[in-house]
Amino acid sequence: MSEPRRKRGAERTSNRGPAAIPQLPRRRVENPYPPMALLSADQIEAIHQASMHILENFGIEVMSPRALSLFERAGAKVDHGSMNVRVDRGMVEEALKSTRPAYTLTPRNPDNAVHLGGSTINFTLVAGPPNVHDMERGRRAGNLDDYSDLVRLAQHFNCIHMLGNQVCAPIELPANTRHMDTYFANLALTDKCFHVSAIGRGRALDGIEMMAIARGLTLDQMAQDPGVTTIISVNSPRRFDEMMAEGLMTMAEYGQSVAVTPFTLMGAMSPVTLAGALAQQNAEALFGIVLTQLVRPGAPVMYGAFTSNVDMKSGAPAFGTPENTKANIASGQLARRYNLPYRTTPGSASNAADAQGAYETMMALWGAVLGHGNLVYHAAGWQEGGLTASFEKLIIDVEMIQHMMEFLRPIAVDEAELAVEALGAVPTGGHFFGEPHTLERYATAFYQPMLSNWQNYEAWQEAGALDTTARATRLWKKALEEYVQPVMDPAVREALEAYMARRKEAIGQGEP
Amino acid sequence: MSEPRRKRGAERTSNRGPAAIPQLPRRRVENPYPPMALLSADQIEAIHQASMHILENFGIEVMSPRALSLFERAGAKVDHGSMNVRVDRGMVEEALKSTRPAYTLTPRNPDNAVHLGGSTINFTLVAGPPNVHDMERGRRAGNLDDYSDLVRLAQHFNCIHMLGNQVCAPIELPANTRHMDTYFANLALTDKCFHVSAIGRGRALDGIEMMAIARGLTLDQMAQDPGVTTIISVNSPRRFDEMMAEGLMTMAEYGQSVAVTPFTLMGAMSPVTLAGALAQQNAEALFGIVLTQLVRPGAPVMYGAFTSNVDMKSGAPAFGTPENTKANIASGQLARRYNLPYRTTPGSASNAADAQGAYETMMALWGAVLGHGNLVYHAAGWQEGGLTASFEKLIIDVEMIQHMMEFLRPIAVDEAELAVEALGAVPTGGHFFGEPHTLERYATAFYQPMLSNWQNYEAWQEAGALDTTARATRLWKKALEEYVQPVMDPAVREALEAYMARRKEAIGQGEP
Repeated sequence: MSEPRRKRGAERTSNRGPAAIPQLPRRRVENPYPPMALLSADQIEAIHQASMHILENFGIEVMSPRALSLFERAGAKVDHGSMNVRVDRGMVEEALKSTRPAYTLTPRNPDNAVHLGGSTINFTLVAGPPNVHDMERGRRAGNLDDYSDLVRLAQHFNCIHMLGNQVCAPIELPANTRHMDTYFANLALTDKCFHVSAIGRGRALDGIEMMAIARGLTLDQMAQDPGVTTIISVNSPRRFDEMMAEGLMTMAEYGQSVAVTPFTLMGAMSPVTLAGALAQQNAEALFGIVLTQLVRPGAPVMYGAFTSNVDMKSGAPAFGTPENTKANIASGQLARRYNLPYRTTPGSASNAADAQGAYETMMALWGAVLGHGNLVYHAAGWQEGGLTASFEKLIIDVEMIQHMMEFLRPIAVDEAELAVEALGAVPTGGHFFGEPHTLERYATAFYQPMLSNWQNYEAWQEAGALDTTARATRLWKKALEEYVQPVMDPAVREALEAYMARRKEAIGQGEP
Repeated sequence: MSEPRRKRGAERTSNRGPAAIPQLPRRRVENPYPPMALLSADQIEAIHQASMHILENFGIEVMSPRALSLFERAGAKVDHGSMNVRVDRGMVEEALKSTRPAYTLTPRNPDNAVHLGGSTINFTLVAGPPNVHDMERGRRAGNLDDYSDLVRLAQHFNCIHMLGNQVCAPIELPANTRHMDTYFANLALTDKCFHVSAIGRGRALDGIEMMAIARGLTLDQMAQDPGVTTIISVNSPRRFDEMMAEGLMTMAEYGQSVAVTPFTLMGAMSPVTLAGALAQQNAEALFGIVLTQLVRPGAPVMYGAFTSNVDMKSGAPAFGTPENTKANIASGQLARRYNLPYRTTPGSASNAADAQGAYETMMALWGAVLGHGNLVYHAAGWQEGGLTASFEKLIIDVEMIQHMMEFLRPIAVDEAELAVEALGAVPTGGHFFGEPHTLERYATAFYQPMLSNWQNYEAWQEAGALDTTARATRLWKKALEEYVQPVMDPAVREALEAYMARRKEAIGQGEP
């Protein structure tokens, strides 16, 4: 993290020879194609009506007295004994009036601001796995070194727009304060946006405060110009536990972004049918969205979807299934019905960075893209249904994300691109390699992969016959070598360290 | 192939226990979603105009005197010296009047008829590789045993609707007659449609005759009710060699199906730009389509597309790239402009049945599906850019095809599927496992994969920690055990054998 290392790195960057890992430039990615529709307008309406029925008649349990009061004051039917809250469609409509169709999160480097909404699509690192895995060191519980390396990779790869919440848990650190160590790593090792933990008020507020310090803003200023987000994973069916509810309210109170995401695995925490799961997801998501607006009208909030199925033989969650893919697309239709930014997820249940890991992730990624996800969460490094952050899978996923980014560049059709002149110049049965039209464009004409191997079989054999996963091992190691730590003002670093010291002292053995 | 073996197999099938490979039932697959549009109507028109310019001003070389005469008689500008043919847009429009928007191919088992056109989507085995590969025996030149096993797998898996032309070349057999041995294997080991080789008149006609014998039809009858197809791979740019032209004309003459497919690898055999490659592809495809209609108005013909890019550093062909995927979708728009069935291809350049093989194939497969391909050629077993038929990749591809088939089943939304009652019955934070709504549906609610492993990490480790490719090895071996040879009337078999004996005698050392 020293200045000399950074400078050497920067020099290396500017003089990168052919050996550097090729990657797409850092850019905001727009989805130029119309979103795919799997549901008709009538079907969307039927799902909407079912979810209104759920909210009006069954209600949602919210294990937070503060939240119950907020709902009660707004006119919801609150049963304090069961903590059940029933809201009517009028309250939902009222809340939706103050939500925003799009907003921007700004990290300490404004060049890495993340636009959420419209046709913009952003990709994040996997969040929440207890374990990490790589082919050399095997599977192990997460620690801060691994955490830091994974975050460095997120910084290095331009197609990763944001960090998820804790790419792994650094278990060697005390559970009640380790969130700050991970926030600090996020801020020191990257200059991108990150997710803060919303397990209770303290963890959320620490993340907000530390991002504000890093940006040199007051909390009031950051409330006007948010810099962090969180994911609120609803305890489906129909329950917001106290920690999540408090985290949600804290984020909204400080004007920071929330993605309300019901965890609706069909057959387990939701009905076994897609329509039923979507109705439930929709009710739960809208309920959380209402709560953000009761706390602070205008608080930035996303419609989150995480509907997949379980293996009915074992109860194990499955991802990247056809059902998951359909849910990713249909949920986008629901998010747009409410004019909200949309968070979605590709995924895989594979235990290895292998073919299944690739096809399941690619399957669901297409759903995320065709569904016009604005925030594609867990997009890189997800393995074992999210229980492990994999170094090799991260590389495979970056490759697949880059494929998508290139797919999202529209086809140009004009006289130069139609190349009629070149077509007349090349003899029948000839080739275009030497044509001026080719020579002028070949260097940038096609997507250049970082991981795919296009050698012929003999050359590939001679080079060691490494399969994709083995090549991915080489690439994450190379990326860590190429990684350049972004500069941080020493005063900012000191302020962050002072904040953490003060807070750790205050927390002691207690909860944050 | 003996009767007793078949009977044992049939018995096993009817008593299949839980250990049988789960697969989707045999069915016609419809694509219920609107095709994706990457090009605007104006862009499609610009590509059309450029291709008309190519046909009218540059022309196509056709190395067949018979074809030149046909074009000349129809009013094309023919240069017999250079064998160049220029056709005007009027001739193209005239030919398109007699093409069909859809048609059906019927094999010896009418249950396996293949509908080409509209929203139907069909998947075929890889065609044309010189090599085969599996994880146990490694890579080797193709032989008839491997050929037969691959064809058995195509028969066994319901999602494979048709066989490509020679899943590998049986090199131990004489090159001038081996096409008949492969046709015979196709007919004896499967009851599905297959592609005949169109390298010259003889190979095409042998395939037509043998299918007619197997179906008990005269050639005239089969001309009214076609049973085989071929792919005409144009020697891009702008050349139909003599063998291909003769093959095309023979197929059309006998009313059999042709997919005219320019081999337009951007940067090599076509311009480096997608618009230019599409303009060239379009010109070449339409030219071949015109030829089919000059031979026999109404001859069944498909618009074929095979546009991908090369690696500009090495010239090696690449597949499953973002450019390939865009071409798969945009070419569907062109095919529909002319109201023709559409043949497309997923692919991969990977040398192994690994993550790259999976993500490249899945990438292009999405393009094929979103582009509304009617015939997804090379859909199973393609490896090394088509140079090798892989047993493991075949299994991985069948899994991916099945994912797509399930994705293409529309979401049902009605009272029963919305499950509002069940949603009210399950307590907050509870689960749906035991709900009547779940129990009534769980057995068929979700796609059940054949290859994907959804065990948790510990159970997967205990079971040997097999990655996807290793599991695929087990599956193709199991599928070969489960395979049941379809019954063939002994008289038909004798007639086929007699035909082959007669023809082999006649061919001798010459060309067929």
